[in-house]
Amino acid sequence: MNRVIKRLILSTTVLCAVATQAQTPQENSGAKSVVTAVRAYRVAHEGQIISEFVRLLSVPDVASDATNIARNATLIQSMLEARGFHVELLPTAEGRGPVVFGELDAQGAKHTILFYAHYDGQPVDPSKWIDTRPFVPALRTDSIDAGGKLIPFPDQPDSYKDNWRIYARAAADDKAPIIGVMTAVDALKANNIPIAVNLKVIFEGEEEDSSPHLEATVDAHKNLFKGDALITADGPIDQSGRPLVFFGNRGVISVRITVFGPLHPLHSGHYGNWAPNPAMRLAQLLASMKDADGHVLVAGFYDNVIPLGAAERKAIAEAPNNDALLLRAFGLAAPDGAGKSLLELLNEPSLNIDGMESGWTGAQGKTIIPDEATASLDMRLVKNAGPEQEFDALVAHVRKQGYYVIDREPTMAERLKYARIAEVTHDHGYPSTRTAMDLPVSVALMRAVDEGAGEPAVKLPLLGGSVPMYIFADLGLPVIGVPIANFDDNQHSPNENLRVGNLWKGMEIYANILAGLEWK
Amino acid sequence: MNRVIKRLILSTTVLCAVATQAQTPQENSGAKSVVTAVRAYRVAHEGQIISEFVRLLSVPDVASDATNIARNATLIQSMLEARGFHVELLPTAEGRGPVVFGELDAQGAKHTILFYAHYDGQPVDPSKWIDTRPFVPALRTDSIDAGGKLIPFPDQPDSYKDNWRIYARAAADDKAPIIGVMTAVDALKANNIPIAVNLKVIFEGEEEDSSPHLEATVDAHKNLFKGDALITADGPIDQSGRPLVFFGNRGVISVRITVFGPLHPLHSGHYGNWAPNPAMRLAQLLASMKDADGHVLVAGFYDNVIPLGAAERKAIAEAPNNDALLLRAFGLAAPDGAGKSLLELLNEPSLNIDGMESGWTGAQGKTIIPDEATASLDMRLVKNAGPEQEFDALVAHVRKQGYYVIDREPTMAERLKYARIAEVTHDHGYPSTRTAMDLPVSVALMRAVDEGAGEPAVKLPLLGGSVPMYIFADLGLPVIGVPIANFDDNQHSPNENLRVGNLWKGMEIYANILAGLEWK
Repeated sequence: MNRVIKRLILSTTVLCAVATQAQTPQENSGAKSVVTAVRAYRVAHEGQIISEFVRLLSVPDVASDATNIARNATLIQSMLEARGFHVELLPTAEGRGPVVFGELDAQGAKHTILFYAHYDGQPVDPSKWIDTRPFVPALRTDSIDAGGKLIPFPDQPDSYKDNWRIYARAAADDKAPIIGVMTAVDALKANNIPIAVNLKVIFEGEEEDSSPHLEATVDAHKNLFKGDALITADGPIDQSGRPLVFFGNRGVISVRITVFGPLHPLHSGHYGNWAPNPAMRLAQLLASMKDADGHVLVAGFYDNVIPLGAAERKAIAEAPNNDALLLRAFGLAAPDGAGKSLLELLNEPSLNIDGMESGWTGAQGKTIIPDEATASLDMRLVKNAGPEQEFDALVAHVRKQGYYVIDREPTMAERLKYARIAEVTHDHGYPSTRTAMDLPVSVALMRAVDEGAGEPAVKLPLLGGSVPMYIFADLGLPVIGVPIANFDDNQHSPNENLRVGNLWKGMEIYANILAGLEWK
Repeated sequence: MNRVIKRLILSTTVLCAVATQAQTPQENSGAKSVVTAVRAYRVAHEGQIISEFVRLLSVPDVASDATNIARNATLIQSMLEARGFHVELLPTAEGRGPVVFGELDAQGAKHTILFYAHYDGQPVDPSKWIDTRPFVPALRTDSIDAGGKLIPFPDQPDSYKDNWRIYARAAADDKAPIIGVMTAVDALKANNIPIAVNLKVIFEGEEEDSSPHLEATVDAHKNLFKGDALITADGPIDQSGRPLVFFGNRGVISVRITVFGPLHPLHSGHYGNWAPNPAMRLAQLLASMKDADGHVLVAGFYDNVIPLGAAERKAIAEAPNNDALLLRAFGLAAPDGAGKSLLELLNEPSLNIDGMESGWTGAQGKTIIPDEATASLDMRLVKNAGPEQEFDALVAHVRKQGYYVIDREPTMAERLKYARIAEVTHDHGYPSTRTAMDLPVSVALMRAVDEGAGEPAVKLPLLGGSVPMYIFADLGLPVIGVPIANFDDNQHSPNENLRVGNLWKGMEIYANILAGLEWK
């Protein structure tokens, strides 16, 4: 345990060094009036904004906690209605958290923007939170790693420092954008700045549980989801601290491979050299899938991938290359990828071993030939190389190594017939989404974010992680990501936190999009 | 759980089919008088013999249970002294079970035979014993798998059937030979048949805990262990049901290899394709160690191995080949070994993966790049290819795959310097012992066993499993194995049992050795 914590601290310390490389914002004159007005409003209302955020963070938000997840939905509904949104709670199967759908029409607007975030958070282990509890939001003067001290929430204007952090589950992932977009609307209204687009917000309550009902819910209410583009606010900004606009996510499919040996473990002395060892067989099978640089050797794995266009290549070239610092942070001497950068490699499909298990290791070690060996893999997918294609290519590869491939435990007859048997199964998986960076709405949104942020955002064609944005892409909506949370937010871990300055900047970015997003 | 039990039953059923192929004994006239006399004694004293065995089996005998293991030693001491043995309890370090040393001189004997067995048993999990308890011996009309029913222990003469089974921990492994040799002495004395050799018995109390103190104890009392040969009575007879004489055991060394990735698990979406995956690296490393037939590719692995002599090759050729039935029993379509038989392959060193572990698989699966991956291996060793040699060859192989090899967790500086780091450690290990089959004592002992058994025993140059008989071989003693327990005795598992007929036959074999073992 200490070993792991020690490593985490080592790693976080170096990542903080990455973040401090962030450029300081420079006001852009074009959007200056909106940003200035929003900032003035925020400075005057900091206590009130944080107080509303704390109220939202105080409601436990694990997707499986049906009672509390419903309390989140009705609280968000009341917050939206107070701002003039027309709200519907779209029920999901099994009585889980509804999709909160809110609509705010703008007079004379030509375009409609959908805005996605989720109000559920990762499951919590309160014992691992340091001095605070997941659903009792707390304020610190900096991150824990940087020695931040717990302080009370002030309620005077102009009292919050950018580096202060709010610690609570879902503070960053993903309730911050919900408060961010609502208070952006408040700031515009208070300053009489007209909103330029019709706004539809979609706040989901099951994202951290793999969005099991989102597709069905969207399908059942397709008419509500009409619009010109969808902004997803999920995720953190660039490791450099600069804002981020991204145009897609990799898809994903998880695969489980089990290779079978003798019916039960055998004494390695009595049968070693003779009874085939499934752990060795699995090792050989997995080893056949990648070369020493990590390039996937599965035939067809890179087929059909749509290459990046000029705009995408340019964006990657202009994005910060944090590879050297990340290597240091993770304690790695050299990356895979034969010289390509992380950002380039994230635009390729990947094949990764999540876990491997067979027999016993360590103190429980027994000198046996195991009865089976299992590996869990995930394949990250890019545009046009979908889950079925990559899974089929993998199965064909396993067959090519001499395996009889099935999707269940073998029968005795099969064990006696086939020298190599592999059980290969997969979850449903889903494809990648990638919106072209040179669409008019893409160009307009990048400009609105740059102006709202007062500095050029990092623009990326694809994030490596997977979110099921294909559900919206399938409706014909260009999907573009504009996250606001800090990179070192401990999302999916204990001690999740949001840097206060990221909420302030997020408000300004979202306000500038709402006030200024225009394209032909 | 059901899956495993189902497999075990399947496997055991087929193994019983192997055992029923055993040849029926045929009396050999040369030793007929001894065997006949011993059998008559046994028939008349069955109740008394089993009663003494039950008394010994009723004392819990897990090596770590210091109080009870000492009770075993003093009980055996009293049993030996009642038969005229001079007994010493040789203490071991840490207050564990002493080595029970007993000496019975024969008038005018030219040779001295040492007889090794152990009185400790494997640890027990009483919840897995079916209808009985490990240290409350019970009698069944057959094995559980064959539908044996629980019956009371009779005490009349001539009442025990050969197929009855006594269920208790250590009944087979390894208290049966202790009772077997003591009652063989009783039967000879009762019949006034002179004992032809001086007998020294060595009953160890820590064998199932890897004999941590045996070597030191033997070293401290070297003068006691002088003799002409050592018979080890540990282990089961041949799967065919025929008696067994074996002339060696493979040695063993256990090795643990850990390959390191990032300091902590990384999100496979954000870093997949870029951060090296230690599970894949380990798979590639392990895969490099063996070809598709299971032949070890580690350079030097088969060097220095002393080839089998003519007597050994002949013995293997004459031994039953149970491979086809074993394949069926274990649900395997084909063995490793490129066409060699199990018995041939057991005479080669082996490299076996005991277990493999990295990240998460199954329901707890997470889509991550693991921080490390570990494999436990064991290498079985043959004569002249000792633990250091094979370990050094393995480490050289790991280095050849590009690894920086250490015996501890890497430092941060090492992580940042070396792209491939492996922690490779090993236990102490010990070498193989192999006694030449054409020594005069070897030839004489084979004849004595054949005659005592009334059928030709299976003779094997080497058993695949490992026991530290090198301790005695290092004293210059030829070590030869004469086990008596049934093959399907569930040794090291719940429901350990001894087939009664094996004890009867064991008595006759041991008595014939004591009465008739002579060589020049």
